[in-house]
Amino acid sequence: MIINQKEYKSVWWEHNRLYAIDQNKLPWELSIVEFTDYLQVAQAIKDMTVRGAPAIGTAAAFAMALAAQVAPEDRFRVSLREARKHLLETRPTAVDLLNGVNYVYEQTIKFIPDIKHCRQVAILAAQEFARHSEEDCRTIGEIGSAIIQDQSRILTHCNAGALATVDWGTALAAIRFAHRQGKKIFVYVSETRPRFQGALLTAFELEQEGIPHSIIPDSACGFYFWKKEIDLVITGADRVCLNGDVANKVGTYEKAVLARYHRVPFYVAAPLSTFDLGCIRGKDIPIEFRSEEEVKQFAGVPTANPSSPALNPAFDITPAKLITGIITPQGIFPASEAAQKVQKYYE
Amino acid sequence: MIINQKEYKSVWWEHNRLYAIDQNKLPWELSIVEFTDYLQVAQAIKDMTVRGAPAIGTAAAFAMALAAQVAPEDRFRVSLREARKHLLETRPTAVDLLNGVNYVYEQTIKFIPDIKHCRQVAILAAQEFARHSEEDCRTIGEIGSAIIQDQSRILTHCNAGALATVDWGTALAAIRFAHRQGKKIFVYVSETRPRFQGALLTAFELEQEGIPHSIIPDSACGFYFWKKEIDLVITGADRVCLNGDVANKVGTYEKAVLARYHRVPFYVAAPLSTFDLGCIRGKDIPIEFRSEEEVKQFAGVPTANPSSPALNPAFDITPAKLITGIITPQGIFPASEAAQKVQKYYE
Repeated sequence: MIINQKEYKSVWWEHNRLYAIDQNKLPWELSIVEFTDYLQVAQAIKDMTVRGAPAIGTAAAFAMALAAQVAPEDRFRVSLREARKHLLETRPTAVDLLNGVNYVYEQTIKFIPDIKHCRQVAILAAQEFARHSEEDCRTIGEIGSAIIQDQSRILTHCNAGALATVDWGTALAAIRFAHRQGKKIFVYVSETRPRFQGALLTAFELEQEGIPHSIIPDSACGFYFWKKEIDLVITGADRVCLNGDVANKVGTYEKAVLARYHRVPFYVAAPLSTFDLGCIRGKDIPIEFRSEEEVKQFAGVPTANPSSPALNPAFDITPAKLITGIITPQGIFPASEAAQKVQKYYE
Repeated sequence: MIINQKEYKSVWWEHNRLYAIDQNKLPWELSIVEFTDYLQVAQAIKDMTVRGAPAIGTAAAFAMALAAQVAPEDRFRVSLREARKHLLETRPTAVDLLNGVNYVYEQTIKFIPDIKHCRQVAILAAQEFARHSEEDCRTIGEIGSAIIQDQSRILTHCNAGALATVDWGTALAAIRFAHRQGKKIFVYVSETRPRFQGALLTAFELEQEGIPHSIIPDSACGFYFWKKEIDLVITGADRVCLNGDVANKVGTYEKAVLARYHRVPFYVAAPLSTFDLGCIRGKDIPIEFRSEEEVKQFAGVPTANPSSPALNPAFDITPAKLITGIITPQGIFPASEAAQKVQKYYE
């Protein structure tokens, strides 16, 4: 992605270290964080310095590589398992985290007892995971741009952009490619309470790319559907189940219901790392509840009656039947078929 | 309403002055504003020191009474018309403002050229408007509480409480009475971006009344519908049309769509001053767009990418067909019949 005329990825490996853009500081400050230790990466995933399902999957894969470099020879496997457990406990909903961590773990332990080789493999495996993730997103952009007509007014939710992935984005990759193809598009960016990833990050990415857009309060989406000013909805995903149900940022589900009511197509874009073939249906996905303080204050400013409780589910489930299609690197499929279609990748 | 064990109204007349609770300072500070001049009242309506359709209707009625006290004898009617015009320009959507201002104007000018009497009548007319508004809300509470079953989990949006009216509230009056009847209820309070009237004001009122509740981000409503944890939706209204379409705080419409999709009853509560028999249907209601700064920052803290534009429609339209019933002081009616049923009041 281009930020201030310079090319960036959201996470990258350099000189045996992991680097990431601090997403809590954007759009005000472009701050790069360096990680030398898997515990630092876990903390960054937890506090959302690194966020977005594919981005945290890749960061966690590199965290495993960092763990492998220092795991003692005599308890290498146990150490990696500890690191894996710790990383998996950071955030429960996005399956990319599980896929990234497990991929590096499985590749690495194959070469025990040659620990030196294991350490090399850990880095190579994480790099491969990152490269796949980035290529997936680029392909999603190319394929997904086909569903965007000239003059389309598109609604997206949260940030499914380059920041949320290694590069390109998922939903935003399709939008980015459509724009680069010369299609005149307009993007409604729902602000995405409580952390404002839409208003802060998606709006920032669209501005950097020169794509016309406007931020709207989450609650104003219905109004623009009612005005018939939304032609298409595209969101990212945090987990796609075998039956095509999708977990994504809270608020996605109600946009899918609105889209159905207004007969507007509703698409989800997801790389392979976001598919969970072991998860039968949406109800089986663990939904993360984050702290009520995220709802009750923003940047230290109170936004709620201090003595009232708040509930803060970070994700919701959109059933397959409300999804027009899932944009994958293998093609665009009906939600109920998408998992089977991409299964080959895992075989 | 009770605030810190003391009885208050949101607006009241005393010693020939108008007083109001400053709703921009709650829940942190209970600050009372005094108005001696109709221009001050207009400003307070504009900046939402006084907000909520019935509350601004009553405040504007008293503003006309203030204007009548100082309107010069030789251009009394012209002065009152100027005051009326100025007040009507403050906010376009809530019809209570129009009804309050017109009621006092019509009653007052009847007695020209007896200006002294006109001035008396202006105060009496505003007081009568306020009394009717308060009685309407109390009756709405009594009647509306019947639709709330024991153990109900209710979703409400924005603030349709005592603060938004003279006293009791509309949606919240029904909730208040149900609670006082001993029904065990739980209220989901959608925070209501961009100004957080749900999180700040509704949560405050429910806390003062001891009613169990929780604040949720606007976007989490769909999640709680999906979990089947919402049994009933009740909102207030800013304008009810002849055909039963309703304007209310932006976000109301999407909750009505969600309620329909989940087969959950969706009720609107409105006093007579909120009905606009001259407005045929929702599309004819002017929707106020407020400043994009309300979306892009809160209490001085930026909440959005600074160089991105934002759209801030303050209201949306819920069509009659999505409304289970409108709770009025005359009874609970199907939305399409409510205006006819209450019409007698105007005859």
